[in-house]
Amino acid sequence: MKVIRNVAEMKAMRKTLAGPIGFVPTLGYLHAGHISLVNQSKKDNASTVVSIFVNPTQFGPKEDFEKYPRDEQCDIAMLEKAGVDVAFLPAPHEMYPNGFNTWVEVQGITERLEGAVRPGHFKGVATVCNKLFNIVQPDKAYFGQKDAQQVLVIKKMVADLNMNLELVVISTLREADGLAMSSRNSYLSQDERKAATVLYRALLKAKEMKQAGEHDAETIREAMAELVQTEPLAEIDYISIADPTTLTELEKVKSQALVSLAVRIGKTRLIDNIVLT
Amino acid sequence: MKVIRNVAEMKAMRKTLAGPIGFVPTLGYLHAGHISLVNQSKKDNASTVVSIFVNPTQFGPKEDFEKYPRDEQCDIAMLEKAGVDVAFLPAPHEMYPNGFNTWVEVQGITERLEGAVRPGHFKGVATVCNKLFNIVQPDKAYFGQKDAQQVLVIKKMVADLNMNLELVVISTLREADGLAMSSRNSYLSQDERKAATVLYRALLKAKEMKQAGEHDAETIREAMAELVQTEPLAEIDYISIADPTTLTELEKVKSQALVSLAVRIGKTRLIDNIVLT
Repeated sequence: MKVIRNVAEMKAMRKTLAGPIGFVPTLGYLHAGHISLVNQSKKDNASTVVSIFVNPTQFGPKEDFEKYPRDEQCDIAMLEKAGVDVAFLPAPHEMYPNGFNTWVEVQGITERLEGAVRPGHFKGVATVCNKLFNIVQPDKAYFGQKDAQQVLVIKKMVADLNMNLELVVISTLREADGLAMSSRNSYLSQDERKAATVLYRALLKAKEMKQAGEHDAETIREAMAELVQTEPLAEIDYISIADPTTLTELEKVKSQALVSLAVRIGKTRLIDNIVLT
Repeated sequence: MKVIRNVAEMKAMRKTLAGPIGFVPTLGYLHAGHISLVNQSKKDNASTVVSIFVNPTQFGPKEDFEKYPRDEQCDIAMLEKAGVDVAFLPAPHEMYPNGFNTWVEVQGITERLEGAVRPGHFKGVATVCNKLFNIVQPDKAYFGQKDAQQVLVIKKMVADLNMNLELVVISTLREADGLAMSSRNSYLSQDERKAATVLYRALLKAKEMKQAGEHDAETIREAMAELVQTEPLAEIDYISIADPTTLTELEKVKSQALVSLAVRIGKTRLIDNIVLT
């Protein structure tokens, strides 16, 4: 596996890789969820590139950019073991040189959910993905369903800007007790780790209610909130039952619905979602 | 010459073209200035693609989008004669389908000169060029120096977003009396056409003064303004003597300076510039 740290070298390397090329952009501190994206990319493509970049522009000033977990050595070992061809770990000044001043902004769907709570977050995500796609020029890029809104935003950017790649979305990987895998789970104390299962339990509650014939979205949201509130360590950021494409909140759950929530467990903010069909 | 009107077909055609590929994006109503870009592209590349698209998003609500001159038949004939391989004339709904909502914005240099007078203009320019570059995927794209700030904005976008093409800037072509070629010259009445030479005369005045040893930018700006004001049909929008990279106004004209101006001749807004070295 080649480890590349600058943009020019990555662009040069790109020309030597056998196609098609799969790409998995990550913030690092890799877990089995990331590796499931890598495995799918390896099935679909002749070469797989993984980027590790804790992108400063997608963190708000009061967010966890500084303390976001990093373990480069372990990440590289995991990617090597997974059979990745190129690990791309650019330095921040490679991605954002002095005087950098161009931004890609998807409007509309970015104003809701994560975008509403984290202003500027998706502008950072869209901009860095746009850059990474131009640098790596993949045929396919792999994203996890856990970040459902991120997937929608990137899909919209790729379509609106006529970019030349296909997005592949991979199901959320979960721990045995249902907690969605996330690098941020490493922040949790033992007690918080137990409390954190409340996100998935709330999602399952929504699923059960829908299956039992409940179609009123607000009734489901309230039941989910009630369940989350049974955890003293949990504080709700939002609970949403929305159209999976437009992210507008639903009154009635009829066909497809994206059920998502953001909850603070102590100081750690976690998100999760399922799609009801 | 192939004439293509939709994005998917252009992307498919792109794969069949011999490389390297040169690209000339235009708003149509072609003149010798455009053809000089085409000719340079033909010298440099195996294939040349020219787009004709009056991009609605770069016109302000009170600007001349509706009445911008169009002559598709004549344009196609000129491109055919010039030996262009593909003319790409997308319909507006091909470029901006319903629900389009992604924008590329270069900050900083877009706040000055044209950007200050035409808010949103460069956001439209950057977005459409980003899209066209992704659709055509050229090795080189050709722009005229007449739109000096546009060149800077597109260069900045390409660099900041790591896009995979090179920009080539071609000198402004002028009529015998010095008027910079522009599709908007077609708006001018006979009297206005005569008055319009005042832009280039003002630029030459700046050049002469610099050559005669005048280094105070404000003195030169004032002399230019005085000259423009001798034309009763002319109304100054701005006169600028700026750093050619940052576009910040200069106090002293030492090394390089971009001298540019925007002047209304009757209802027609014209721009022009020269670089003093």
